[in-house]
This record gives sequence, C-alpha cells and structure tokens, in this order.
Amino acid sequence: MPEISRRAAAVAPFLAMDVMAAAAARDRAGAATVHMEVGQPSAPAPRPVIEAARAVLESGRVPYTEALGMHALRERIAQHYRETYGVAVESERVVVTTGSSAGFILAFLSLFDAGARVAVPQPGYPAYRSILSALDLVPAPMVLRDEARYAPTAAALRATHAAAPLAGVLVMSPANPSGTVIVPERLGELCAAARGLGLPFVSDEIYHGLSYGVPTATALQFDPDAVVINSFSKYYCMTGWRIGWMVVPAGLVRAVERLAQNLYISAPYLSQVAALAAFDAREELDAVRDGYARNRAILLDAFPGLGLGRTHPADGAFYLYADVANLTNDATAFCRRMLDEAGVAATPGLDFDPAEGAHHVRFSFAGSEAECREAVTRLKGWLTG
Amino acid sequence: MPEISRRAAAVAPFLAMDVMAAAAARDRAGAATVHMEVGQPSAPAPRPVIEAARAVLESGRVPYTEALGMHALRERIAQHYRETYGVAVESERVVVTTGSSAGFILAFLSLFDAGARVAVPQPGYPAYRSILSALDLVPAPMVLRDEARYAPTAAALRATHAAAPLAGVLVMSPANPSGTVIVPERLGELCAAARGLGLPFVSDEIYHGLSYGVPTATALQFDPDAVVINSFSKYYCMTGWRIGWMVVPAGLVRAVERLAQNLYISAPYLSQVAALAAFDAREELDAVRDGYARNRAILLDAFPGLGLGRTHPADGAFYLYADVANLTNDATAFCRRMLDEAGVAATPGLDFDPAEGAHHVRFSFAGSEAECREAVTRLKGWLTG
Repeated sequence: MPEISRRAAAVAPFLAMDVMAAAAARDRAGAATVHMEVGQPSAPAPRPVIEAARAVLESGRVPYTEALGMHALRERIAQHYRETYGVAVESERVVVTTGSSAGFILAFLSLFDAGARVAVPQPGYPAYRSILSALDLVPAPMVLRDEARYAPTAAALRATHAAAPLAGVLVMSPANPSGTVIVPERLGELCAAARGLGLPFVSDEIYHGLSYGVPTATALQFDPDAVVINSFSKYYCMTGWRIGWMVVPAGLVRAVERLAQNLYISAPYLSQVAALAAFDAREELDAVRDGYARNRAILLDAFPGLGLGRTHPADGAFYLYADVANLTNDATAFCRRMLDEAGVAATPGLDFDPAEGAHHVRFSFAGSEAECREAVTRLKGWLTG
Repeated sequence: MPEISRRAAAVAPFLAMDVMAAAAARDRAGAATVHMEVGQPSAPAPRPVIEAARAVLESGRVPYTEALGMHALRERIAQHYRETYGVAVESERVVVTTGSSAGFILAFLSLFDAGARVAVPQPGYPAYRSILSALDLVPAPMVLRDEARYAPTAAALRATHAAAPLAGVLVMSPANPSGTVIVPERLGELCAAARGLGLPFVSDEIYHGLSYGVPTATALQFDPDAVVINSFSKYYCMTGWRIGWMVVPAGLVRAVERLAQNLYISAPYLSQVAALAAFDAREELDAVRDGYARNRAILLDAFPGLGLGRTHPADGAFYLYADVANLTNDATAFCRRMLDEAGVAATPGLDFDPAEGAHHVRFSFAGSEAECREAVTRLKGWLTG
C-alpha cells in the first residue's frame, strides 16, 4: 500500500462537500433534505446557455480549445469589464479556466514558490488554505473581526505582514461565508497597501453580480496588475459546468498559459460555448438574484426567533454566517444532528475558520423560496419545538 | 508587475498546444490546415453520449456532484474492469476526474512530497514533466531506446533508481508519442520491479482500447495497489468534455477525495452523465478505431517514400513518432516550416524528449482518412517535390 504524502495528509476535508455527500446519501435512502450546505443556485442555467450547448451537441464536435480559452469568449469577458466597471482589459489578458478552482491553482503556481506565505481571509473559503497547503505554500490567516462585519482592511493586511513577511495577498468580495462586500474606497486602500508592501494582489470576485443594495468594485479599478479570479458558477448559475476566468497582468499570461497547457489542456468546450451565451441572459439572471434577495429577507426575518439572531445581514453572495455560540460549541456535531433530525443540510463554520468556526454555521440561501420557507419551518420545529 | 515564480518559469511550453494555437490562427486567417498536431479524434462523441447530454439540457439542471464523482458512473467504471480485464475493482476506489490531467495532479499530490523523484518515460507525454515540476517534484527520465521500440522495462526502471533513488514510477501503455504497448508479461515484470523497490506504480492507460492486434493489460492485473489513470478523451472520443477517471488503492481514496474537493469541487456534470452512456457505444467506437487502423496503414505505407521511413509501426494509440534525423536537426523549425509551407501541423519531438527530440516529429492519425490522404499529398509535394 502506497503511503499518503505529508502534504495530502495536511489537507483538511472540505466539510461542505462532506455534508453534501452525507445529504446525498440521505436523499438516495428516500429522505428529502433541504440543501443549504453548498453554494449552488437551484435555478437552472439560463435559456441562452442551454440553447448554445444544445447547438453544439447538434454538431457533435466537442474538441479541446487553446489552453487560454476560445477567442470569442475571452473577447466577450474583456468587453464585460468595459461595460460593467469601465475598465479596459485586453482580451489577451483574459484566461478561461475550469471554474475558479483552476484559477486559484494557476494564480498560486504562477506567482509563488514553495514556502511563500499568502494572506487569506479568516473566515474565508476553505479551498484557499487547502490549495495553498497542497502546493507547499503557507496560508497566512488575515483575521477578520465579527465587530467589523468581517471586512478585510489595509490595517489587517499590514498586521498580517508584520507578524511574518508575506509573498502575496488574496481577498474576496462579496465574501464567502459572510457575504461581506468590501466597499470601493476600502478596496482601493487594500490595493494600495499591498502595492506599498510589494505584494501581488489576488482578488476573488466570484460573487460579483450578487449584492443587495451595495456596489461591488473590481480590484482592476485600483490595481491594473491585480490577478482577478471569477467564475460562471454563481451569478450565472453554471456550477456543474465548471467554467470560470482570470484576468492577469500581461507579463504573467505566458507563464499561466504554459501551466494551463500542461495542467488542464483546456476548459470544457461545451461550457465555454455556453458561457459566451450567458452574457445575453442578464434579465433572467437578475430575476434569479432578486429571488436570493427575497430568500435573504425570509431568513433574516426568521433567524432571531430561531435563536440564530447573531447573524450579519449579508451584503452580497448567498450565505448567512450565523454565530451559534448560544446553541453549541461544536457546530460540526450540531450540523450533523440538524441534518439527521431536521433534514436541513448546512455547513459547519470550521470549514471557514479553524479558530472561531466551532460556533458558526453557514446557511446558503441559493435555493428556491419554497426551500427557504421549508427550512425555516423545519428549524423552528427542531430548535424551538 | 508581479514576478513569475521560479517553478512556473521552469515549466516548458507544451509545444503541441503551441502548434495548435498557431494552426488555429492560420485557419482563422482562411487557410485550411491538416491537423496532425494534437491527439484528438476527429470523430464526434458517439450518439448515446450526445443523447445523454441532450437529456440533461432538457432538465436544465447541471449541478456540482460529489467530489469523487457520480455514484452510477463510478459503478459503471468498476464494472468495466470486471468485463474488460477480469479484475475486481470496488466502485469506492474509482475517482471521476476532470480529464486525465486532474488524475495526474491528484496522484502526484497524494503520493509524493516536494523533492521526490518520479521516474517518467522519455520519450513521453510532456505534461508528466511539467506537472511534476510545477508541484516541486523531480521528473527522473527513464530513457527508452529506439532499438527497443521505446518499451519501458524493469531493467530501465532499476537503472533509473540506481542513478538516484526514486519515490515512484509512472509508465504509459499504449504510449504517447511512440504508440508502443508494454506486453502483459513485461508490464508484470515492471510492476514486480517497482514493488521490489518499494515504489508506488502509476499507470497511464489513457490509450487503452486503441491497439492494432496487440493485447493491452491494466497494471491492476499485476499490482492491486497500482494507481491507474484513464480518460474518456481517446478511445471514447470525448476530448473537449474533460472527463476521466482514476483507480486508487482503498487507503488513498480519502486523501484523493480531500484534494479533489478543494482543487476541483467536481468534474463537469454534463460530461459525467454523458460518459456513463459512452459504455453503450462500443460498436460505434470500435468502428472509429478501425478507421485509425486504416489511417495508420496509409501513413506507414507512404512514410518511407517521403523520407520518413525511420518510424516504428505503432502498436496502439494514434501517433507515429518519426525519426527525421535525415531531414533536420531542428524539428521545431522543421514543424514550423511544415505548417507554413505545407499546411500540415505536427508536433516537434522536443515536447516528448529533451535529449533526442530535436530530430523527431510526432504525427497524429486521429483525423479522418481524407485528412490522412491529404497530409500525404501535401508532404509529398513539400518533401519530395
């Protein structure tokens, strides 16, 4: 039996995925789980996306593409930056990726050598830490404070760098799990602080397009050399298509291309063609986002009565990150019981925060309104019944 | 401008992909290139695959799956091992991956720590070297000899280990670029040698199903702990779908799952559903393979007259690896001229062999019979005209 490498042994399980697997097993056994564990829109991909994929299937041709992605899609994404943010991005700097997952791997490998410390938000998306560890990089938690609505600041970045020198920084807005948006002025300060410290700035903008009355800015507005990572999984409702993109500085394109050629060959072809059509579906997608806004209101209205009142109203994304210290100090066991007894799947906070996560739970409200209402009913029976 | 990491700078371009990009640019400009540069079937995916994908699109639901892949697909792949090789593989040991590319990354990360030396065939698939380097591992070339038809042997493995201690070994059969099949007896000896040296055995079996009168064995027949990597890209004609699989020892499953959760989330959903249907298309796929056999015969018949006679008849896969020392000592420049002047795209040997590749060219015969005939006509005019 081969032994497991040290770096693989060091990778923590992605608890949301483990909960998803447990919930799927439960569903196969005939139970009907309310799924709030994974950040996945329950809405189908928009019509133009489906139609574009269908047209490809008519032809039967589903080939590799160039490693950086199809020209037309790279051009359309560049246009998106002009239209949405008023930022000029040459299409040559756009890299089509197999979801944002591939974007992180390509960004980290192209920017950092083994041992480099990279600041990541805590609480934050757990794959940051795991991918960095797997690639022999060192995640440096930038501790975000509940009192500050978990918003990263230039001061937090400087403090993290002062504790031990960083090689780079990653921030996310709107954030997972907190939903917090970094307002444009603060994002500008963060970019300036990183530049002052000589640190490459990686900006995860996967939840752009999903905010509730708060404007979102791209890091490219403040740092033309920022490495931006995005995806069609969230606003565009294309999770299982595994398709995303990066914007990288011109000087990094060839290094990313060489890595992408060898590590991925290319992103899935059907998904590339379909993603191109996603830009024509804004009306349909905005309606889905309006549904999230209603779900958010339902949960924010109900949570205090369920004992889940220590929850910031999310600025964006589709999560509520509840402090459940009043209910448990073992959120992982709590979530397991909630799944088994109430039939509601949610993700324990340790996924996002090894320090404070034991008394947090993340609820995704990306499902339907009916699912949100059913969750409230079930939780009411379980928590207060 | 951020600097490029040392490990990214060390990754060589995948020349086949570069040729593909150049050929695509040429085609966009109105030329009609004969594409023999990338290992990609020109046949469309089989009908059941297309129909299965179409049915998914009807529903509009394209979600994430569990990180290890859909249960039904894992079970069908396990059944494939029983049917095809008479080997018992539990479905729990099957991991669905985003192409074989993801399989290599998951295998290398789960088995090896930074600095580990991994034997890889030379000539061989260039991404082995590049992925290993990107992950801070050290590719140790197992030099294969033209006189021995580029077949890896237990002696070659022992010699590579004697030169500097290895942490593992990877072999491929049928091989890229040579087409060489390791006959079952020799594969058994290789597995035994690796086991004797205490080395995990990684077997790339992506070209299984494509051989011309020679039987192919899976490493699992000789080493139940072998890590097998395979894909739907070649025999199953599903390149751009980016879908493949691994078989791993039971003790490695959870480590691979944790990595897959964090590095990939899941393989593309449409492709997973479609791949399940690929097993029902054997007749259609065998007809495609019979077409490769005809293409192979056309090229083997014509090559001597073109001055390309120093070419082993491929046992399998869909490549001819020609020694062009009689024509050039700079195969990269030769391929560029061949593309520009003859409109035939092929891949320079340096992709596969940094030592001897400068006088080799790899021709893919995965295209149509008409394309193969057109290539012969063009090459005749260019090389002997």
